[in-house]
Amino acid sequence: MTPGASHLLGPLFGSPAAGAIFSDHGRLQGMLDFEAALAAAEARVGVIPAAAAAPISAKCRAELFDPTALAEVTARAGNPAIPLVKRLTALVAVDAPEAARFVHWGASSQDAMDTGLVLQLRQALVPIDSDLARLADAVAALAAAHKMTLLPGRTWLQHALPVTFGLKAAGWLDAIERHRARLASLQPRLSALQFGGAAGTLAGLGDRGLAVAAALAEELELTLPDVPWHTQRDRLAELATTCGMIVGTLGKMARDLSLLMQTDVAEAFEPAGDGRGGSSTMPHKRNPVTSAVVLAAATRAPGLVATMLASMVQEHERGLGGWHAEWTVLPELVILTAGAISQMADTMATLEVDADRMQANLDVTQGLMMAEALTLALGIKLGRLAAHERVEAACRRAVSEGRHLRQVLAEDPVVTAQLDTLDFDRLFDPQNYVGAATALVERVLAARRK
Amino acid sequence: MTPGASHLLGPLFGSPAAGAIFSDHGRLQGMLDFEAALAAAEARVGVIPAAAAAPISAKCRAELFDPTALAEVTARAGNPAIPLVKRLTALVAVDAPEAARFVHWGASSQDAMDTGLVLQLRQALVPIDSDLARLADAVAALAAAHKMTLLPGRTWLQHALPVTFGLKAAGWLDAIERHRARLASLQPRLSALQFGGAAGTLAGLGDRGLAVAAALAEELELTLPDVPWHTQRDRLAELATTCGMIVGTLGKMARDLSLLMQTDVAEAFEPAGDGRGGSSTMPHKRNPVTSAVVLAAATRAPGLVATMLASMVQEHERGLGGWHAEWTVLPELVILTAGAISQMADTMATLEVDADRMQANLDVTQGLMMAEALTLALGIKLGRLAAHERVEAACRRAVSEGRHLRQVLAEDPVVTAQLDTLDFDRLFDPQNYVGAATALVERVLAARRK
Amino acid sequence: MTPGASHLLGPLFGSPAAGAIFSDHGRLQGMLDFEAALAAAEARVGVIPAAAAAPISAKCRAELFDPTALAEVTARAGNPAIPLVKRLTALVAVDAPEAARFVHWGASSQDAMDTGLVLQLRQALVPIDSDLARLADAVAALAAAHKMTLLPGRTWLQHALPVTFGLKAAGWLDAIERHRARLASLQPRLSALQFGGAAGTLAGLGDRGLAVAAALAEELELTLPDVPWHTQRDRLAELATTCGMIVGTLGKMARDLSLLMQTDVAEAFEPAGDGRGGSSTMPHKRNPVTSAVVLAAATRAPGLVATMLASMVQEHERGLGGWHAEWTVLPELVILTAGAISQMADTMATLEVDADRMQANLDVTQGLMMAEALTLALGIKLGRLAAHERVEAACRRAVSEGRHLRQVLAEDPVVTAQLDTLDFDRLFDPQNYVGAATALVERVLAARRK
Amino acid sequence: MTPGASHLLGPLFGSPAAGAIFSDHGRLQGMLDFEAALAAAEARVGVIPAAAAAPISAKCRAELFDPTALAEVTARAGNPAIPLVKRLTALVAVDAPEAARFVHWGASSQDAMDTGLVLQLRQALVPIDSDLARLADAVAALAAAHKMTLLPGRTWLQHALPVTFGLKAAGWLDAIERHRARLASLQPRLSALQFGGAAGTLAGLGDRGLAVAAALAEELELTLPDVPWHTQRDRLAELATTCGMIVGTLGKMARDLSLLMQTDVAEAFEPAGDGRGGSSTMPHKRNPVTSAVVLAAATRAPGLVATMLASMVQEHERGLGGWHAEWTVLPELVILTAGAISQMADTMATLEVDADRMQANLDVTQGLMMAEALTLALGIKLGRLAAHERVEAACRRAVSEGRHLRQVLAEDPVVTAQLDTLDFDRLFDPQNYVGAATALVERVLAARRK
Repeated sequence: MTPGASHLLGPLFGSPAAGAIFSDHGRLQGMLDFEAALAAAEARVGVIPAAAAAPISAKCRAELFDPTALAEVTARAGNPAIPLVKRLTALVAVDAPEAARFVHWGASSQDAMDTGLVLQLRQALVPIDSDLARLADAVAALAAAHKMTLLPGRTWLQHALPVTFGLKAAGWLDAIERHRARLASLQPRLSALQFGGAAGTLAGLGDRGLAVAAALAEELELTLPDVPWHTQRDRLAELATTCGMIVGTLGKMARDLSLLMQTDVAEAFEPAGDGRGGSSTMPHKRNPVTSAVVLAAATRAPGLVATMLASMVQEHERGLGGWHAEWTVLPELVILTAGAISQMADTMATLEVDADRMQANLDVTQGLMMAEALTLALGIKLGRLAAHERVEAACRRAVSEGRHLRQVLAEDPVVTAQLDTLDFDRLFDPQNYVGAATALVERVLAARRK
Repeated sequence: MTPGASHLLGPLFGSPAAGAIFSDHGRLQGMLDFEAALAAAEARVGVIPAAAAAPISAKCRAELFDPTALAEVTARAGNPAIPLVKRLTALVAVDAPEAARFVHWGASSQDAMDTGLVLQLRQALVPIDSDLARLADAVAALAAAHKMTLLPGRTWLQHALPVTFGLKAAGWLDAIERHRARLASLQPRLSALQFGGAAGTLAGLGDRGLAVAAALAEELELTLPDVPWHTQRDRLAELATTCGMIVGTLGKMARDLSLLMQTDVAEAFEPAGDGRGGSSTMPHKRNPVTSAVVLAAATRAPGLVATMLASMVQEHERGLGGWHAEWTVLPELVILTAGAISQMADTMATLEVDADRMQANLDVTQGLMMAEALTLALGIKLGRLAAHERVEAACRRAVSEGRHLRQVLAEDPVVTAQLDTLDFDRLFDPQNYVGAATALVERVLAARRK
Repeated sequence: MTPGASHLLGPLFGSPAAGAIFSDHGRLQGMLDFEAALAAAEARVGVIPAAAAAPISAKCRAELFDPTALAEVTARAGNPAIPLVKRLTALVAVDAPEAARFVHWGASSQDAMDTGLVLQLRQALVPIDSDLARLADAVAALAAAHKMTLLPGRTWLQHALPVTFGLKAAGWLDAIERHRARLASLQPRLSALQFGGAAGTLAGLGDRGLAVAAALAEELELTLPDVPWHTQRDRLAELATTCGMIVGTLGKMARDLSLLMQTDVAEAFEPAGDGRGGSSTMPHKRNPVTSAVVLAAATRAPGLVATMLASMVQEHERGLGGWHAEWTVLPELVILTAGAISQMADTMATLEVDADRMQANLDVTQGLMMAEALTLALGIKLGRLAAHERVEAACRRAVSEGRHLRQVLAEDPVVTAQLDTLDFDRLFDPQNYVGAATALVERVLAARRK
Repeated sequence: MTPGASHLLGPLFGSPAAGAIFSDHGRLQGMLDFEAALAAAEARVGVIPAAAAAPISAKCRAELFDPTALAEVTARAGNPAIPLVKRLTALVAVDAPEAARFVHWGASSQDAMDTGLVLQLRQALVPIDSDLARLADAVAALAAAHKMTLLPGRTWLQHALPVTFGLKAAGWLDAIERHRARLASLQPRLSALQFGGAAGTLAGLGDRGLAVAAALAEELELTLPDVPWHTQRDRLAELATTCGMIVGTLGKMARDLSLLMQTDVAEAFEPAGDGRGGSSTMPHKRNPVTSAVVLAAATRAPGLVATMLASMVQEHERGLGGWHAEWTVLPELVILTAGAISQMADTMATLEVDADRMQANLDVTQGLMMAEALTLALGIKLGRLAAHERVEAACRRAVSEGRHLRQVLAEDPVVTAQLDTLDFDRLFDPQNYVGAATALVERVLAARRK
């Protein structure tokens, strides 16, 4: 009955941990944490009686609230903070009628909702950070382990030159580390209190507004911003765009992985185990489930990010529609991102790499991939142009006759006058034509250790 | 714990009816309806024993399945049809072990999921169609009732020339009727069986594939397509884009409405009643909740449509990621669309129009809005250019002196030589300068009756 | 100096024909065609002197206007119709000062721009329609020619069951034909006059507004809508979404093609010829340039469509920002779409299909793809469950020992008791396990002929 | 003839400075700067003859190249670097046939294109940075000047509580300063050399690859990345998302501005002057052209950002489609962003604020906006609940009788027993109910000075 709700598909696409944080329960608890801290801060500053804080705080537990019961008033009132505050007031009033008067004192619905959301997001970033670290470690281990594992480099999906699997992993890793830096740098901007009262002036608190705000930020261990940000949504948009970029990188990894895992390529595999990726009709298949899930996230994230950016255009002192769009979009994006990171971390930690098949695939084009190496070597002896023409002709012949380039070249006396069998062995060994691959992997790994 | 799940916000943003259809229960039932019909069709065609159909069909009831229990295998297997079929087989086996062998015979997971989704969508289109009709009726009633109700036409958010509220409503109505035509024309394309077996050839059914397909389409009252559409997703994309267009029109209506409802304009209002749109801190406010909800949908829909279009790029005989993205995105879009239509229909049926305020606002610019009418009338007497210069000068003076244009013009002897008080009365009455407004409203209303 | 302008990249990504239509020249001509027809219609109806039409029409030629000279006023005035009308008036005034007074009589900038755009779009749909037909023909020819050409069906990028290349092409074709139907059905809605004057009432034309509108629609051979659609943009959005869907289908074709063209698969190829797809460093590569261009379009289109949908939320009687966004977005989308269609049509008409390699690739999994066929055949003799277990065990052994499934099964006396060499030959021939593939291709081809 | 090309609309929507940087000329010069620096670096490192660098560098001037002439080969080859290198080689060969052999030595097309793009982007960030600073200064000046200028705070587009125009500006400013911080922090990541040769290993340079890379980075004053980033596109995506966020904030400002500029509100105005915002038919109108342009950018940016994120999913060692999509999308987004910043900076520097009208609008609701202030003041005397009920009843009466709240309350003896005329004066003066507004403005201004 709710947009996107699915117990059935949740564990497939999202992270259960993040899902719990952004459940109705989590949303209510976020707002209630705000209300409890507000009462504490106001009591501390002396805006409300000292005795009012504890009874309010005592009822700020989401399990005392029924989302379904609050939903009807939410639909009429236009936001869930209104019924929540009403219900909280009633709960407090049972034991402490005096304290009940001071629930939500001087705050607006948006204060509760925005700050509650910030608290949820801060919580969600914990597993995201640790899963990203776990993913980085797993990919770093692959980069190190496969520093020398050769496979065909593919450009435009065509075999180009040999690369190493370590280099491929180092490229992934380098991007992941940049994302970790971005997340670290956005967190102070994101973890900021939103507190402005009805129109952002804190007018309801007279001359004590800033004092309450400072105490409240302290209670919640959030940054105190210079000014309320009720209709300046870049703090949230920045998290969204960073999620979008992370998922973009994961999507690139998943695309690579699924291409390597093709039956026709078979160079790397998602771990099987326990029915993972089984087909309902073809028992011999092993489906790339993680890749599919991550590619689905990469298909979805751009639209969700675009929505967060579009929703930034909020009117005056409270947005009409833009604000409301955020309520479901940002959680959904964070859940998808968390799910994609965690599943990719699992998969990379147990990836199966078939180095033999990689090696074998290097020769699928019968030596053509080494043409550039041959051209360069011959160029030193014959001049670059002559070498180029010679090798190019040989390539054409090799293709048209379906033979190996080495064979064709070995029939050319001009070539054999310059290169002997040992030279051929060396020049046709892809290992000798991966340039700076190893050094590049080491640079990336070294940068991590700094 | 699941992406976007919210009992708290569901009724605010979505349609409960559509929400129920796209719940886990609805999704399971869609697939089970496919499985039951498949058994019936195969029994009819003689591919499976006649006796197998009834026991299978008897267990095809979603309440026998627990989404949470199926979720774990779904996450491992990569789709929910695999655990569903397994569980269905087990259920059938209890009473009819022979029949159990024929569950899902010759079908693929995608057949069950896609056709199940089509069944859900067909169901969801029923309230969408009827709510759109209800919305059209309400807007038509507004157009008819306010055929003569004048208000300022506003271009670039500036007062331009007088229009009628009926004309504004007729514009909305005209668009809604086009959407209804689009929905009608897409339905045969959308309501198509997907049935192709493991790779789209129906190979598992030998030479009986097409016969089963035809019988199955008949059972489900779906179109039999010329070829399976497992990786041709335009049928679904078309519904998505149509939803996107509908929500775009609703968003335009909501923008208009929220602008008219501004405290500074106050020309039309969403119905109040029973706490609707109340503010948590300012008792005198009436918030445009429907507008906010619809504008939120209009902020979200473009991203969801874009995702559906992006997900069309599906690989070979089964998409990797693109297909998976659809599973949550299309339901979410349909739920949002249904919710926006239904709430806008409620609001338009009870809209409060303040015709007096509209009339009063026409004179906010002190007659400037009638300058064009004056220019045209004077032009007949003085020549167009002379008239234009005269009126323009008067406009400038009226603005700089803060006086009414009529007053200023009445001091110009060249003007008063041509126009007397009655002329002035007529020319400054906005009612006499709305051109074809009434005829245009009538054209739109007449087109409906056809 | 202008957004997205590129002579360098235009021919790569777009269609030169569509590009010309949407050039500055084309845009100016669209508006000028409107102005000429307006003068003719108004002269006909008697709203302006009969003598005024010809002198106005004579100057309505884009080559008399310099886009760069008009740009400065455009930037200040906020739209290009204002400087265009001013310049046109001046040009007419040179020879016919009387007629000059009647330029743009009773119209608004938006009337000229919107109707001008509609005229451009109508023009652009001509090559789009004919290229789509050409594409459909090329794909139909492939479907017919390769009705029996077997290749591995691939789901989740894994070999699944054999399919035919004809079936793959039939799937593409079926989608293309649906798009052609959609284009045909939207054209009457799209080819509609926009004419409403300053605020949509045609007030400037007194009681002659509708008569002029009817005459104008006739002049331009456009539909006369029931009401102006200045802020109801679904007509344009529908073209945008249809382009989005077409490009989605083309993207699917391009993805398939580029996957087939992988060095590791090598089953089908974009035509080479004349440096097409050459690599700057690897002479032996053949890059899938059309696929890249079409996939780039498929990456871009969803965002452009989303923008068109977002821009539907236009304020009152003239949009502020939403309208302006359309001016460059819709042309860009149509150009991209036209380019993608035309390049795909070229490519499909000259596609190289390597049927031998397709056949060879069917056996890459050493018979595993035929496991289902074996299971079904054995099932008739041994019972389904026993057959399934037997074949599954053989599959596992074949994989672990790197042997062909046939070899392994041939060692199982239970199996050989049921199946002789001829049976094996038949069951391991993929040709005998493509189900309804041929019939499905024929259904799609037959539907075209209707 | 090219996507999105428009001399007519370029100056309206984009920044001429940024437009020039991203013209065909600018794109060619970016690649040529790469080629010149490559030759210099390779000569320095000793990979090519020292004498080869100068003749190559001498021809690396875009004016020697004709984009239209290169376009045809670009369309066939799939990228513009191939014809550029060919043409450059030919130009160098005229005077220095020996040097011509070393053009583009060891580099790939992507190296030239990506690094060329980075050089263009670095250039474009100069005006963007300075215009953002200019915008921040203008908005800071508004915040300071209007620290005490009262106007209605509006939430859900309804009058809520009084705020100050300075506070509104401070909110804008605070967001702009965050964007400046984001731009500063992304620049080192963005300004990174891309240099990897055919497949990212620099194999063509033997063991000198890294030495050349280091020298090349030095020549171009770019960061030397740890590993080539040819298919890791987060560096570019980060600029795109930051542009998206900037435009989001500008869109919010433009929405606010256009709402304030409504005829019905009339509190602030874009500068007029020299035909800016004139209407073609209504001489008295002043259209918000900057707001329209910026809102158009805010409508377009989300789709462009989404495309950049979607395009991150690039295959193996060179993307197929994703890479190609970037070529036009990122420049377009940067041009739009630069245009929006620069126009908003102009507008904010000359904004007309009508403080009198703002003050007058505060009383549009006849005192209702001060109800909360009254409730709080009375609450101290009567108790909060009694005060609330009293004031609420008075509000209802005021609304239904169309009278001023002060008048109604002045008739209530219970109220007048507590509040005298001076109290009423004070409590109904909005200036006394803006809470921390001034302090918040000062905090934001002080943070800038740090």
